[in-house]
Amino acid sequence: MVDFYKQLVEQRRELHQWPEEGWTEFWTTAYITEHLREWGYEVLLGLKVIDKENVFGRNQELVDAAIEAAKNRGVSQALLDEMQGYTGAVAVLDTGKEGPVTAFRFDIDCVCVQETDDASHKPNQEGFRSVHDGYMHACGHDCHASIGLTLARWLMENKDSLKGKFKIVFQPAEEGVRGASAIAASGVLDDADYLFGSHISFMADTGEVVVAPYGLLCTTKYDVTFRGAPAHAGKEPNAGRNALAAACNAVVQMMGIARHGGGMTRINVGTLRAGEGRNVIPCTAHMALEVRGETSEINDYMAQQVKNIIEGIAKSFGVTYEISTMGAAVDFLNDAELNDIISDVAKTVPTVNKIVADGNFGGSEDYSIMGRRVQTHGGKAAFFICGADRTAGHHQGKFDIDETGLTTAFDMYKGIVEKTNK
Amino acid sequence: MVDFYKQLVEQRRELHQWPEEGWTEFWTTAYITEHLREWGYEVLLGLKVIDKENVFGRNQELVDAAIEAAKNRGVSQALLDEMQGYTGAVAVLDTGKEGPVTAFRFDIDCVCVQETDDASHKPNQEGFRSVHDGYMHACGHDCHASIGLTLARWLMENKDSLKGKFKIVFQPAEEGVRGASAIAASGVLDDADYLFGSHISFMADTGEVVVAPYGLLCTTKYDVTFRGAPAHAGKEPNAGRNALAAACNAVVQMMGIARHGGGMTRINVGTLRAGEGRNVIPCTAHMALEVRGETSEINDYMAQQVKNIIEGIAKSFGVTYEISTMGAAVDFLNDAELNDIISDVAKTVPTVNKIVADGNFGGSEDYSIMGRRVQTHGGKAAFFICGADRTAGHHQGKFDIDETGLTTAFDMYKGIVEKTNK
Amino acid sequence: MVDFYKQLVEQRRELHQWPEEGWTEFWTTAYITEHLREWGYEVLLGLKVIDKENVFGRNQELVDAAIEAAKNRGVSQALLDEMQGYTGAVAVLDTGKEGPVTAFRFDIDCVCVQETDDASHKPNQEGFRSVHDGYMHACGHDCHASIGLTLARWLMENKDSLKGKFKIVFQPAEEGVRGASAIAASGVLDDADYLFGSHISFMADTGEVVVAPYGLLCTTKYDVTFRGAPAHAGKEPNAGRNALAAACNAVVQMMGIARHGGGMTRINVGTLRAGEGRNVIPCTAHMALEVRGETSEINDYMAQQVKNIIEGIAKSFGVTYEISTMGAAVDFLNDAELNDIISDVAKTVPTVNKIVADGNFGGSEDYSIMGRRVQTHGGKAAFFICGADRTAGHHQGKFDIDETGLTTAFDMYKGIVEKTNK
Amino acid sequence: MVDFYKQLVEQRRELHQWPEEGWTEFWTTAYITEHLREWGYEVLLGLKVIDKENVFGRNQELVDAAIEAAKNRGVSQALLDEMQGYTGAVAVLDTGKEGPVTAFRFDIDCVCVQETDDASHKPNQEGFRSVHDGYMHACGHDCHASIGLTLARWLMENKDSLKGKFKIVFQPAEEGVRGASAIAASGVLDDADYLFGSHISFMADTGEVVVAPYGLLCTTKYDVTFRGAPAHAGKEPNAGRNALAAACNAVVQMMGIARHGGGMTRINVGTLRAGEGRNVIPCTAHMALEVRGETSEINDYMAQQVKNIIEGIAKSFGVTYEISTMGAAVDFLNDAELNDIISDVAKTVPTVNKIVADGNFGGSEDYSIMGRRVQTHGGKAAFFICGADRTAGHHQGKFDIDETGLTTAFDMYKGIVEKTNK
Repeated sequence: MVDFYKQLVEQRRELHQWPEEGWTEFWTTAYITEHLREWGYEVLLGLKVIDKENVFGRNQELVDAAIEAAKNRGVSQALLDEMQGYTGAVAVLDTGKEGPVTAFRFDIDCVCVQETDDASHKPNQEGFRSVHDGYMHACGHDCHASIGLTLARWLMENKDSLKGKFKIVFQPAEEGVRGASAIAASGVLDDADYLFGSHISFMADTGEVVVAPYGLLCTTKYDVTFRGAPAHAGKEPNAGRNALAAACNAVVQMMGIARHGGGMTRINVGTLRAGEGRNVIPCTAHMALEVRGETSEINDYMAQQVKNIIEGIAKSFGVTYEISTMGAAVDFLNDAELNDIISDVAKTVPTVNKIVADGNFGGSEDYSIMGRRVQTHGGKAAFFICGADRTAGHHQGKFDIDETGLTTAFDMYKGIVEKTNK
Repeated sequence: MVDFYKQLVEQRRELHQWPEEGWTEFWTTAYITEHLREWGYEVLLGLKVIDKENVFGRNQELVDAAIEAAKNRGVSQALLDEMQGYTGAVAVLDTGKEGPVTAFRFDIDCVCVQETDDASHKPNQEGFRSVHDGYMHACGHDCHASIGLTLARWLMENKDSLKGKFKIVFQPAEEGVRGASAIAASGVLDDADYLFGSHISFMADTGEVVVAPYGLLCTTKYDVTFRGAPAHAGKEPNAGRNALAAACNAVVQMMGIARHGGGMTRINVGTLRAGEGRNVIPCTAHMALEVRGETSEINDYMAQQVKNIIEGIAKSFGVTYEISTMGAAVDFLNDAELNDIISDVAKTVPTVNKIVADGNFGGSEDYSIMGRRVQTHGGKAAFFICGADRTAGHHQGKFDIDETGLTTAFDMYKGIVEKTNK
Repeated sequence: MVDFYKQLVEQRRELHQWPEEGWTEFWTTAYITEHLREWGYEVLLGLKVIDKENVFGRNQELVDAAIEAAKNRGVSQALLDEMQGYTGAVAVLDTGKEGPVTAFRFDIDCVCVQETDDASHKPNQEGFRSVHDGYMHACGHDCHASIGLTLARWLMENKDSLKGKFKIVFQPAEEGVRGASAIAASGVLDDADYLFGSHISFMADTGEVVVAPYGLLCTTKYDVTFRGAPAHAGKEPNAGRNALAAACNAVVQMMGIARHGGGMTRINVGTLRAGEGRNVIPCTAHMALEVRGETSEINDYMAQQVKNIIEGIAKSFGVTYEISTMGAAVDFLNDAELNDIISDVAKTVPTVNKIVADGNFGGSEDYSIMGRRVQTHGGKAAFFICGADRTAGHHQGKFDIDETGLTTAFDMYKGIVEKTNK
Repeated sequence: MVDFYKQLVEQRRELHQWPEEGWTEFWTTAYITEHLREWGYEVLLGLKVIDKENVFGRNQELVDAAIEAAKNRGVSQALLDEMQGYTGAVAVLDTGKEGPVTAFRFDIDCVCVQETDDASHKPNQEGFRSVHDGYMHACGHDCHASIGLTLARWLMENKDSLKGKFKIVFQPAEEGVRGASAIAASGVLDDADYLFGSHISFMADTGEVVVAPYGLLCTTKYDVTFRGAPAHAGKEPNAGRNALAAACNAVVQMMGIARHGGGMTRINVGTLRAGEGRNVIPCTAHMALEVRGETSEINDYMAQQVKNIIEGIAKSFGVTYEISTMGAAVDFLNDAELNDIISDVAKTVPTVNKIVADGNFGGSEDYSIMGRRVQTHGGKAAFFICGADRTAGHHQGKFDIDETGLTTAFDMYKGIVEKTNK
């Protein structure tokens, strides 16, 4: 008999070693697909589950390099061809019996963080540290993928006692909330009666389940480029149009966008790359930034302020600009009926000792895009938190989680299936 | 016989005690006018020497208050009426004999600086400290006015041995380069064959004369107002349009205007008054600023950058703006022929022990406006520096000068008259 | 019989015409005191209700001018002497019967806003516009004072059917949360079993009562002064230490303090006064600012960031600084038992048609200081909102309220007394 | 007979095709060395002419890559070994006869600019565009190297009629004024009686020679790194220490360093690389910047302000910093005696039609470091400009020069040798 709890940990650790950033998860998608097919799943890939018009923040150069790297790690050309340049996968299990369409969503990408080489870090002690330099599963999506795989295997093993259909989404590019829109727009979830998703750790420690996190922030991601004119910085600085100075002034203005009386706001300029050389007036500057708001209205306020600032700065500095949308998430609230189910299931899970009704998520999650899509089509959706102690905050090089959380999550999903598959 | 050297010091010290800022020199103008008329001068006042269209940076409220204060110090209503609300005076001496029209220009206003109450400060020791709180002759224009008065008296005493005409301009509002344009535009100097002017101290110590200072910077003075919208800073900061934040960002951008490869630039936001209350999003901000450039082209570059920044900031912050021109000066170079005269005269002045051919003035002087006007009408113009040790930099509360410089200046002007009045 | 509802409106309008800012409410205090004494109250003034050590943000020059103005409006010297330079009053009614000590708090100061002269503005139409130029009851404290007075009169009229003691606090300087600390620290409320307070309008329209507003933000108010060194802006700008530039950079940094994951933050630099003259490098800059946070911890975070920025800026610009605390409020939650009372009373008030359990206040209120003091001494405290339509946001020149709100508030207080005075 | 004028153009165009940035000119150094040795020169390389302690702004990774690239372009391992990892070369010609030591300095590095692919650009039309992507001889150092080589060949051809010694320095890393210090400190020029250098084009058009450019700005180059702490930008932005925001605020402050009354200043932050990802509070920021001043004192003022700002920003933002010196140049004036020689020679050069006594260079040149070294050791030094029309400003992708300037320069150097070699 399959030891699901062993698989949870083993596959999480395998996935941890080759983290891939959003839209480059070719090896990860192959790993997932091959296991799923081995267990008997139909797996949809590429443009079957991706709507190209709604792909945000995908970089072709990074994609090409990742495909090359995936080949070097043994992924077959045939499988890569099937992906058509787009990562992510949807596993489908049709029991053949009348019943609900139940969908699950697990995200699979990593962040661009260097994993610590500190000897006390468990992945170092137990030999499963990232070997992909500069990349790390520092947000727990390795766990999510592993939970999804284990759930898929358990569903297949228990196929005969189930009815209806199951769709398990392995979503690319959650970081930057880039990937959900493309999958939602593909329509693959439009027949779902239920969509469940979860995050591990985050705001909850080992033993806790948060049933209905609120404060999933709306967010918009922008790339902004300023273009000016170069000049010799000694000879005639006045002849230049300083894109770096423009960007720096834009940053200080954007950081200072007035807080909103209606709720939480966020602004982050995550990266800035500007200038060509020390003694040349800088003529290009690229920024990757994001705004968030507690509601769509507040997020729109932030986005509008950003646009006003960029436009004003361009005028002040005599530079031109481009703004590209790179990602988006919306606010989201669970269907109340599902909250009861989640809460009831949590009471039955051995590793859970504290059920928290709600709590402030305080971040963005593009699960919200899929959840809203399902709700719009008449289904019900919910997102919950499975607690796990962590050794450092998410997105940090020392991040690691208590793997008990994997068990909690798997047991939660099992319980949810048992409750809803009637 | 008149002791001119005694008069120089005495009148300087009388003027020092009641300093008046630009366009408010009603008492000072009365003091000058009354002495000149006592000595037999025709004195032109008010709109006879002021062109209203070219009055920059005059504040009616300050004017009204200053007229009141002048009355309280004993200035007659008749004389105030003659001034028509505009300060400054031009004394005219017509010898009745054929000869050149020789003009001199002396400025008479003060700066808004509190004079030190330090016991070691000579005006405190000898009892001639400013009694006009918050105002001080910290740029030496008390000396200039006194030199002009003494020169006038000497000319009148020596009238019989002179020929042609003399015009002695006592100019208001040099600080901020506000006053010269109005007098130049009145045409009162359009018949001048010569115009001489000078500054005391500044870049030269006691015993020095700088014949041909270069680097009289072109300058433009602006007042800028931003208007936004108020809002409760706790309840809904987003509903405001923050004029204070707009102004502060404008300041940091303006300070950072790129230096010019072609020569010196300057930018100063001298005052900023913004905001209504601690817990209200500020809805107004007023700035008094100036730009300078070594040439007209460079000054125009600076002025254009300022305008671009103000416009861009208004866009970024959703505020409106007004820009008003408050003053102007141009660049200026002495006529070479007059440099020779100044240099030759300096050799004959007992207190002069060092004659410097040129030197970087590094500031703005609206003498340049008058000098250019005279040059344009076919006359010749020159501006020189009469050295004097100072106890602190110009415009500082501890500023005082070695009064030997008064003697140097008076002797220089006497010598110049002797050389040119042929 | 007394027409309380008529008095509510009449006294509100009288108070509206002579608004006085925090710590200068000498005429207002006299108005209140004289009426209270006329009705038979003992009224405590001056240092009997003010602890000098805890007076924040009081300006002696403004106080002196306001005393002078109060005299000119007919306040007697004797009453002014009794105030000892400190505004505010506490009315005490002792029924002589055993019973609870019930306290109420009403604030009485105005904001520094110019009231609109728009003809459609009701105070203009009905002749009760502010005649104190530049000052306006644009936050409704005229209403609060009037409600307090009417409540006081009603209590006195119904004295025989009441028991215990009543203390009605007329608090100065709520704007800037400056006044409550001094009254709380005086100990005058330390025997209170109940303390009730309310705000009119704000977040609720006519007909609404908000029982338990949350989000009373913690706040700290600072005055910050930078001092640099002056210099001639043309001649040697490098010799200055630019306090205005320091302040502007501090503002842009402070506006950009990172949002807090734990809850709401606010930052406002409400006023900035910097610089001495257009052509002088500015050597002084004064800022009045405030930070807020949803909790004490978050407010402390904001305050610490401000201090770090001020210190860093001083280093960068070679200027010195002073930071003075000018006000403070804490977060506060109603005692649950009182919420039930307020809610029950609201059901009985004819003008109330909507009872809102809670709602985000999103501002600071120094009622919180008094409320916490009472809670610490074993009493119970609550703060509620009496709705009233408004014509513009609080603190704006076009602000006016639907006077129905006065009736609602008075009826609420009457009902509360009836419920609690057992 | 050698056609020197043909060689000038041919070698310039060969060098133009493989531009190498400072300290990576391995192929260029090999090209120069091989030609010189073919013509009979002794050529000193590596640590014979480089003092390691005074090497600024050399990046070992770039060096390693460039050595690899040089090998790929056919440079022998033996020659690379001789260079010991350091580029540049000094050619020595000893005539064997008593006489002066005459030195010349030519710089050989390129800038990191992409050469235009515009069809009208002459290097495109005539097939000598850079094939080193992202690198370009956009400052004319390809011309300088070619002039040096042609001069060297001419000296060797005319060896018998010359006396004394000649040293021809091919200096690496002039861009960023990084290379001269290391060669000067090696002592290789300490016996020079004369040192001549020149720049092509820059401030002079075809036909012009500028004898004594003034305004060679002192400069200091810094690399600055801020390090903060990462955090999730949505969940707890307050937990981060934002290095990107620190850098941007540092930039706006540095751009705004007060102009200096004593002369020209410059500040440029040429590059800024900050942040790790869009939704992570940025924890690193790197800036490459430079300051300049007309004199050492002014340059020191600028450098000190930069340091103050960096330190203050670190305090404000709670980040750490490192400042590394990456380059330096000093101010420099020609020996008057050599000006006469240059001027006299210019009169004899056929392509020269305008001799300009002086002019504002307005940039930095580390020739100044060598020139000062020679002057300090009792020799005489001069730097002049050989005019050439240009199609765009220096350091721009469309920059190209009129090759007539090569002829002018070669003829000038020949003439100088004829005048001084007595």
